[in-house]
Amino acid sequence: MQQRSIFISFEGSEGCGKSTQIRRLAARLETLSRPVTLVREPGGTPIGEEIRQLLQFSKINKAMTAEAELLLFTASRAQLVRERIEPALRTGSIVIADRFLDSTTVYQGVARRIDAAVVKFVNDFAVADCRPNLTFLLDLDPGRARERMLSQPRTPDRMEQQPVEFYEAVRNGYLTLAEHETSRVCVIDASRTAEEIEQEIWRHLQPLLG
Amino acid sequence: MQQRSIFISFEGSEGCGKSTQIRRLAARLETLSRPVTLVREPGGTPIGEEIRQLLQFSKINKAMTAEAELLLFTASRAQLVRERIEPALRTGSIVIADRFLDSTTVYQGVARRIDAAVVKFVNDFAVADCRPNLTFLLDLDPGRARERMLSQPRTPDRMEQQPVEFYEAVRNGYLTLAEHETSRVCVIDASRTAEEIEQEIWRHLQPLLG
Repeated sequence: MQQRSIFISFEGSEGCGKSTQIRRLAARLETLSRPVTLVREPGGTPIGEEIRQLLQFSKINKAMTAEAELLLFTASRAQLVRERIEPALRTGSIVIADRFLDSTTVYQGVARRIDAAVVKFVNDFAVADCRPNLTFLLDLDPGRARERMLSQPRTPDRMEQQPVEFYEAVRNGYLTLAEHETSRVCVIDASRTAEEIEQEIWRHLQPLLG
Repeated sequence: MQQRSIFISFEGSEGCGKSTQIRRLAARLETLSRPVTLVREPGGTPIGEEIRQLLQFSKINKAMTAEAELLLFTASRAQLVRERIEPALRTGSIVIADRFLDSTTVYQGVARRIDAAVVKFVNDFAVADCRPNLTFLLDLDPGRARERMLSQPRTPDRMEQQPVEFYEAVRNGYLTLAEHETSRVCVIDASRTAEEIEQEIWRHLQPLLG
């Protein structure tokens, strides 16, 4: 019997610890011999990775309009859904996405102030019926997230160079979204140790693993 | 007194002679000392030119989904409108666009069969209020257009490698659109000589030049 596929997304601002938790969760699932597919946004496909370069690291992108930004993020996602996520789910894999739909709702909708109805329409078109079963929102005070981010030995990308007000808007946007979708979105206090967070995520996930 | 700005777009399938006519029109306007801004799609800005590469020449784009294609074309357009077209129109320039909104309506909507209401919504978001005053649709039999295209000394790009049914759908899509927007779209018989076409375009444009 094929095991049930599950689609899990991780959300939260830069520096909240998503990558660490995704690695830990994937390792744990692999010990159960469950097939795991990891994807990240923007990117995750050859086309999406080129879009990622353009969004995050291009020298020319300082002039990027909010409208172009929204359309580029969702172009990457439209490709990712059809090229990787849906095929993986069809074979019974557990798909773990480092950011998905909610990032656009919050970053381009709330923080960049593009009309929420427009963001929803474009998002819905990009993903069609492909939605996470469960979303972990790693919630962290923006000041603390910034400290963590700056302690990493790499140059901040374009999104990471936004002013602190941007990150406050992002955090509030995520929390509001979580209030409206309590059955899908688990808010996780990301100020604790990685070990504690991993345990909580595992507890939430177990009922779905069957 | 500042002269009136005019926004003109050229549409039509590959091989219909748009580039030739745009060059001729720009040269003619320059003899009148009218400032002219030429833009092309996808592209026309540094960000848009990177998107153009991805859409037309990337080795990886054979797998591109219709959804990602629509969002990439409109991302390029959203940037072009705000970075170049609107500023040029504000200074009284005549803007000539090699493809604009209608290309997406026809190529992604009609030929790729994305729902027309979705294409319209995304298009409207990308361009906001920025619309051509006048559009020249260079209409040519797809077989004839193909011959012209293949006679050019360069490798066909991804869009140019579509099957002939695709171009028949494109032509019919353009003609239907022109029937619905007779006050904006001039259908030009592109089977004639470049000289004849240039004269007809000039006749249509003169009332707007004042």
